[in-house]
Amino acid sequence: MSLRTGADLRAIREQKPLVHQITNYVVMNETANATLALGALPVMSHAPQEVEEMAAMAGALVLNIGTLSEHWVDAMLLAGRAANGAGVPIVLDPVGAGATRYRTETSRRLLEELEIAVVRGNAAEIATLAGQEAEIRGVESVGTAATADLAQVAARALGSVAAVTGPVDHVSDGERHYAIANGHELLGSVTGTGCMATAMTGCFLAVRREAPLEAAAEALVAFGVAAEDAAAGAKGPGTFHAALYDGLAGLDPKTLDRRAKVE
Amino acid sequence: MSLRTGADLRAIREQKPLVHQITNYVVMNETANATLALGALPVMSHAPQEVEEMAAMAGALVLNIGTLSEHWVDAMLLAGRAANGAGVPIVLDPVGAGATRYRTETSRRLLEELEIAVVRGNAAEIATLAGQEAEIRGVESVGTAATADLAQVAARALGSVAAVTGPVDHVSDGERHYAIANGHELLGSVTGTGCMATAMTGCFLAVRREAPLEAAAEALVAFGVAAEDAAAGAKGPGTFHAALYDGLAGLDPKTLDRRAKVE
Amino acid sequence: MSLRTGADLRAIREQKPLVHQITNYVVMNETANATLALGALPVMSHAPQEVEEMAAMAGALVLNIGTLSEHWVDAMLLAGRAANGAGVPIVLDPVGAGATRYRTETSRRLLEELEIAVVRGNAAEIATLAGQEAEIRGVESVGTAATADLAQVAARALGSVAAVTGPVDHVSDGERHYAIANGHELLGSVTGTGCMATAMTGCFLAVRREAPLEAAAEALVAFGVAAEDAAAGAKGPGTFHAALYDGLAGLDPKTLDRRAKVE
Repeated sequence: MSLRTGADLRAIREQKPLVHQITNYVVMNETANATLALGALPVMSHAPQEVEEMAAMAGALVLNIGTLSEHWVDAMLLAGRAANGAGVPIVLDPVGAGATRYRTETSRRLLEELEIAVVRGNAAEIATLAGQEAEIRGVESVGTAATADLAQVAARALGSVAAVTGPVDHVSDGERHYAIANGHELLGSVTGTGCMATAMTGCFLAVRREAPLEAAAEALVAFGVAAEDAAAGAKGPGTFHAALYDGLAGLDPKTLDRRAKVE
Repeated sequence: MSLRTGADLRAIREQKPLVHQITNYVVMNETANATLALGALPVMSHAPQEVEEMAAMAGALVLNIGTLSEHWVDAMLLAGRAANGAGVPIVLDPVGAGATRYRTETSRRLLEELEIAVVRGNAAEIATLAGQEAEIRGVESVGTAATADLAQVAARALGSVAAVTGPVDHVSDGERHYAIANGHELLGSVTGTGCMATAMTGCFLAVRREAPLEAAAEALVAFGVAAEDAAAGAKGPGTFHAALYDGLAGLDPKTLDRRAKVE
Repeated sequence: MSLRTGADLRAIREQKPLVHQITNYVVMNETANATLALGALPVMSHAPQEVEEMAAMAGALVLNIGTLSEHWVDAMLLAGRAANGAGVPIVLDPVGAGATRYRTETSRRLLEELEIAVVRGNAAEIATLAGQEAEIRGVESVGTAATADLAQVAARALGSVAAVTGPVDHVSDGERHYAIANGHELLGSVTGTGCMATAMTGCFLAVRREAPLEAAAEALVAFGVAAEDAAAGAKGPGTFHAALYDGLAGLDPKTLDRRAKVE
């Protein structure tokens, strides 16, 4: 196995997989637009009457607890079981795990009741779920570093690929490991860029189900390169944010693997 | 009857009609901003305690099922009956009709229980509601063409003006027909541009209640011209999206009819 | 007491206070991004299972009724009581008070049951709550002027600092008063800029709890200066909106007090 980000981006644009997202109110437009800009088709749907039908026909399912509440968690479980039954891979974004008991417990419950292919979070969220001490302020990791060790420990503890994002991203399945240095510090100045990275992970999972470790790493390479391009002409977080979608749409499969900063 | 897009845009900017929108979480900010940029006043409200009061005082009511759930459908019915009682025109956007049974059935229910002035959707959504075969992936039409025939058949089947958008938009009341070639392919790369077109339809309906066919066609002309202007300086979907609001705000009533590509 | 906007902005960026926001669906992304661009940390959370825990650990709580419904109002009350108990200041944005009975009554209820540090609204919203006649169309004030008198009367009637925004903003605690002439007319062309001003008020309150009058005035100075900078290169509401976050992130504590247009 190895990374083939360019080829998988091409596959996304050709197959246009449906990426079903049950996500938070803050970033719905943003993750839908990032999904569309990359080349896949987003659909947002949370009603119990339809989530099973939608998840089962999707290429991947994205679960994000950023503005969770009871009915939404129920919908995530319903959709998740349908996805598991249909062989549709799931990526989980445990937004704010560690900040409140409800977020920590809900993340644990989703991880226990569903088969999750990839968990994508910041260092504090992932450390919390792996049973380590971490400080999180709201949904921002404070002082916990994203490290290879953390990714490996978390992957083993959670039985899932762990993608820990930060200045350098670390992705591990418990055995193998990728460190990705693509990206730009402006990503930290726009809300929901973590959630977008999770959506991108769903897009790559949809075309590379058999290799969730590689899919997660490729998503972070692609998103990081788009951020680098977006930062080039940006004057601050607002113009960077608009340019980020241009960057995703402008990603060139031919140069993508060359631009990857991966170990 | 004929199109007078420039004059009706001037009327919108002078009267600033209130356009009540019960819409999906993904595009609320975007359709509100498009409404404001065009020159009308948006209001988003879905609580059963207030939707009747709000709808009855509005210039038009927009119903959009993009992220539907039971309580929201109840609110749409409450608001819709109040709008019908007060003579306030309704435009319906059946987002994802055909993708799940729940969306198809909810769209049908709204069309049966309410008097809908205009239904605005993509070809697959409209074809599904007209009882034809169609393929939709999530909320995107796949392989079904927007045609004059489809618009006419749908208008007759639904007892409503049908506005089918695509590379060329087709609007019909079952007898008369407009084809509108304004717009730009970048519209397909930004989520919610269909929803914005629906909101624009609400704005024009508010100043031209007696002629829903013309109001729907004018909205698509105005939105398409704004998209053409936005595309001029755009580097991709993100900068296009930002420029789209500039384009709507910059629409010139004096040149609008001349720029219309209508048959 | 006097304004020290630059110093308090510096404090925000150093302390990165958590600003808990229970706000409307339309502007969640926008107020989160404005909060982040200014230098604080936003968190959006409304579940009864966690709002008390979140509010008690926050630097300030923002309550905004823009798309209110029963469960959300319950969450606001729960969070508000926890904030009051923990000494966390609350800013209320009574979006659309006066437009429907439900909005007026909910605003009054929040003001009665909670200790609110600052109420930030447009002239019609504030006038309605102060018991005066006002016209509001949806959520836009029509024909009611933001005046020093209105701010003073409202502050006395509501037992809270009143921040009335308009071409000139007026902030009063019933005794003392600030008039702020910073800002730009393009703010009126983007939805949610009032809500952003409320979020900014929460950020300044978090670092200046003892002086809510000054915190509210400083927030409007900072937001107004950012808008002036954003307008400089904007071509319309869309590019202005993107540039507004750049403007907030680019605010210079050294020049901010000099640029304040305050009486």
